[in-house]
Amino acid sequence: MENSPKATRESAGERELLARIRARARSTGSRELVLGIGDDCALMRLGPGEEFAVTTDLSIEDRHFRLDWHPPQSIGHRTLARGLSDLAAMGARPVAAFLSLGLPAKLVQMERLRSAHAGAQSAHRAWIDRFLDGFLALAQACGVPLAGGDLAESPVAVADVVLAGAVKRGKALLRSGARPGDVLYVTGALGGAAAGLRRLEELAARQGRRQDAKPAWLKIPAQMEAALDAHFYPQPRVAQGLALAQRGLAHAAIDLSDGLSTDLHHLCEESGVAAEVDAAALPAAFGVTRAQALHGGEDYELLFAAAPATRVPRALDGVRVTRIGRVLRRDRGAPRVTLLGDGGPRALAARGWEHFSPFGSGRL
Amino acid sequence: MENSPKATRESAGERELLARIRARARSTGSRELVLGIGDDCALMRLGPGEEFAVTTDLSIEDRHFRLDWHPPQSIGHRTLARGLSDLAAMGARPVAAFLSLGLPAKLVQMERLRSAHAGAQSAHRAWIDRFLDGFLALAQACGVPLAGGDLAESPVAVADVVLAGAVKRGKALLRSGARPGDVLYVTGALGGAAAGLRRLEELAARQGRRQDAKPAWLKIPAQMEAALDAHFYPQPRVAQGLALAQRGLAHAAIDLSDGLSTDLHHLCEESGVAAEVDAAALPAAFGVTRAQALHGGEDYELLFAAAPATRVPRALDGVRVTRIGRVLRRDRGAPRVTLLGDGGPRALAARGWEHFSPFGSGRL
Repeated sequence: MENSPKATRESAGERELLARIRARARSTGSRELVLGIGDDCALMRLGPGEEFAVTTDLSIEDRHFRLDWHPPQSIGHRTLARGLSDLAAMGARPVAAFLSLGLPAKLVQMERLRSAHAGAQSAHRAWIDRFLDGFLALAQACGVPLAGGDLAESPVAVADVVLAGAVKRGKALLRSGARPGDVLYVTGALGGAAAGLRRLEELAARQGRRQDAKPAWLKIPAQMEAALDAHFYPQPRVAQGLALAQRGLAHAAIDLSDGLSTDLHHLCEESGVAAEVDAAALPAAFGVTRAQALHGGEDYELLFAAAPATRVPRALDGVRVTRIGRVLRRDRGAPRVTLLGDGGPRALAARGWEHFSPFGSGRL
Repeated sequence: MENSPKATRESAGERELLARIRARARSTGSRELVLGIGDDCALMRLGPGEEFAVTTDLSIEDRHFRLDWHPPQSIGHRTLARGLSDLAAMGARPVAAFLSLGLPAKLVQMERLRSAHAGAQSAHRAWIDRFLDGFLALAQACGVPLAGGDLAESPVAVADVVLAGAVKRGKALLRSGARPGDVLYVTGALGGAAAGLRRLEELAARQGRRQDAKPAWLKIPAQMEAALDAHFYPQPRVAQGLALAQRGLAHAAIDLSDGLSTDLHHLCEESGVAAEVDAAALPAAFGVTRAQALHGGEDYELLFAAAPATRVPRALDGVRVTRIGRVLRRDRGAPRVTLLGDGGPRALAARGWEHFSPFGSGRL
């Protein structure tokens, strides 16, 4: 509400910050992006016969990340990964990313901010620059330019990411295409992100008992860093989703953002079917509990349904593909999802991550 | 960070809230929207020879709106208006809107929330429903469906809006197209939103002195409501922007979100030109000061540059168009923008709204 004229001159700091972000964003590009940062809108041009896919994902301090636990690079990476994973689940090719950031003033100042991963070289850089390190490194790896966005001061850190992608008409992988008899597959390994979060919680509990000073940045032992990678830097399966769509391998797909049990329920509901999962077949990540593999969110692997006659390769672009169950006809009275093995068949409830616990949550 | 399985069952409240929003969103549609709410992404299909325009705008409690001053319907309207105005400034046709909402739990509960505009009929509806009343009424008026989004709990209210639009290849109105000799025009009247905000500030100061109880909802006298409309319910100039682009009337355009002085500087910078404005020609809204007309933000009128030979109509779709100045060659040493009249020519500084005052702000 600062729009009385006296308080509203553009500051050197504003121009400098925006120029810094724009300069860094210009380091990536895509052939579809006709006009990027700098105008009222970005402009994109697709090939003939292509459709636009658009998704938005909102990340909020203390709900999706913690400033005292997550390195800023990880928060930047995770913010973008959520959107890229949605494109992957549609089989869409990323075209452009947009980033709306609301940040407390301290996070954009060139302070000596200590953080979990602040080495000597990064200790003098502002939080926002290290956030962009993580965001833009993943953007570059996936060939997607930062095409626009918005900045505002905010009492808590919020980051909303928008991804625009392209997919051939009629080739998008929907949640609603699974048919009874289809085989269910997942990419990669499950539960690693949830297990990493559990390790962070344990570290915080131990270090919290020893520390009095605030803010208490979590100290991450060097030997634990690799075990936290699945949580800090999950890899969206963009190439795998593209391969599924282009080669016509899948009837339906969804990304595992909330956890297998919840996302499989979503897939079944949208397709009007039921499913069974073989507990023994689940590709659990190393050191992960059965519950983490079944319910842990934020792995960003793909779950997809393929016709029984389809020859699904054992790996897509270097990532393993595992058969985990079957799509069934929906019978009233029968559970939506059944877990086989692990002590006999039983109903598998949706117990994945709920972002919005006090009053409901999630994607519209 | 609630993704340990024990805390993460889907609640009836979650499903009910999402179902309510989805049902309301389905009341609008556009022919370009192939797939709306319910999957990992929305899908859109443009006509041949069309480009896709995308913009994002982040609104944050106490920076862009106040829960104790603004009726929820106004906050919903203003959230969407910001994005629609960006499309208007490109001359793009709205295709779909996306809404990411972070809200404190109290705002989604069916409480008897008092508010400035809570009539008997609305007193039992949750804040979020009245926010959607305002958002969806404007969406329907502009023919744009709510195609997706995201919800999360947040300690402060944040709303990020994404607008996707369509524009003929090469016909988009850019900030960078103004040429020396062009004539400058604005739509509508200026300063009304800033004057409305000033009235709110005065009301709050007066009522603040009389009230002890918190939360102190601002009481808005019935006879003042019309005078606040320009602030509470600004009208994005979608039809006017479309007409400018389709009829090839403008070389360049920008929407007046930050205030004429600042947005004219943006236009000049992107076009590499200078400009002069005739103070006597400014179409000030009723009861507005000269400073409010020059610097007040959030009017969402369009500023555009047209060739001197172009016959610009006096009104576009019922909204007045006023000639306010000229585009000049950029001379080093001379001011970027000169104000004529009002005590002789003088440099007009960019003194419009800065959203992000402590450390810079604005659109990437």
